[in-house]
Amino acid sequence: MKYCSSCGHPVEHRVPAGDNRHRHICPSCKTIHYQNPRIVAGTVPVWQNQILLCRRAIEPRYGYWTLPAGFMENAETTDEAAARETLEEALADVIIEQLYTVIHVPHIDQVHIFYRATMKSAEHGAGEESLETRLFSPAEIPWDEISFPTVRRTLEHFVDDMEQRSFPVRVSDIRHPLREETGKTSE
Amino acid sequence: MKYCSSCGHPVEHRVPAGDNRHRHICPSCKTIHYQNPRIVAGTVPVWQNQILLCRRAIEPRYGYWTLPAGFMENAETTDEAAARETLEEALADVIIEQLYTVIHVPHIDQVHIFYRATMKSAEHGAGEESLETRLFSPAEIPWDEISFPTVRRTLEHFVDDMEQRSFPVRVSDIRHPLREETGKTSE
Repeated sequence: MKYCSSCGHPVEHRVPAGDNRHRHICPSCKTIHYQNPRIVAGTVPVWQNQILLCRRAIEPRYGYWTLPAGFMENAETTDEAAARETLEEALADVIIEQLYTVIHVPHIDQVHIFYRATMKSAEHGAGEESLETRLFSPAEIPWDEISFPTVRRTLEHFVDDMEQRSFPVRVSDIRHPLREETGKTSE
Repeated sequence: MKYCSSCGHPVEHRVPAGDNRHRHICPSCKTIHYQNPRIVAGTVPVWQNQILLCRRAIEPRYGYWTLPAGFMENAETTDEAAARETLEEALADVIIEQLYTVIHVPHIDQVHIFYRATMKSAEHGAGEESLETRLFSPAEIPWDEISFPTVRRTLEHFVDDMEQRSFPVRVSDIRHPLREETGKTSE
């Protein structure tokens, strides 16, 4: 941020009075511009014990396999966002079952939230951001071609939990690769 | 948003090519400015079966009782944000136990996330945004003076769950008062 989005004046980057973090502040209209983490919402779409993955048609990670997910929009809920992304990227209509993983990625200011979901039918296909979609049994998952660490972790938990037939909500962090990872909550 | 935060040019508000939502777009530098929901993170701080509440020293809801909570900052996790807010608003040092409620408030573009937390000691006090803090037994909770619907719902669940000695993760929505409310997931 270089200019005030309210008045167009160049902003300063400093700690406001009574605060303890650097913010973008407009010296003209005095607006303090806060920046906050964004939520990425997605699903683990299941049809008859198979998991639906999408092969990405966009960067980053073009050509890698992913769970359908994307940035939550204003005026929606995380489960609405997850179902919408599943429809957009995999052309799959799902019933949202339950919250499954919450994975913080603080070095990129994101929180990734995945729901377990059941496909209403076997129908699926490539949306605009996908090259192809395919149902994978747990043994078929292309582990060497998975797009992102949060997708990999969610799939790893899911395959384990399918065997146990129990799907606790799992909260964890993915830190910068050079820092530690923590797995905090698993009920 | 009236001006582009990247180049200072007045922005337009229209649907970009390939999108289906209105965005603020800069006709000069072509930046699309996305706006996304914000996360409010807080705790239910417990000391010996009593719940710590704060009486608000700021608007909105000046003078009403609340759970310690506030906007999640960049570069932190939801549990870090929740613990930080608890220290700032109630001067209470807590151990985060588990994720407890996730409550969407889509008409104000927010997601409220509360963790169960155990106070490390009986110490607490009013931070800058609080008039006072106090430990309440379930029977003492001032239901007529609770600050926000998400705090009320979290406390209602918590009091019920204390009796059952089981604290499932609860995901629900609080819609605009004139629209429906939905309670979706309770494991």
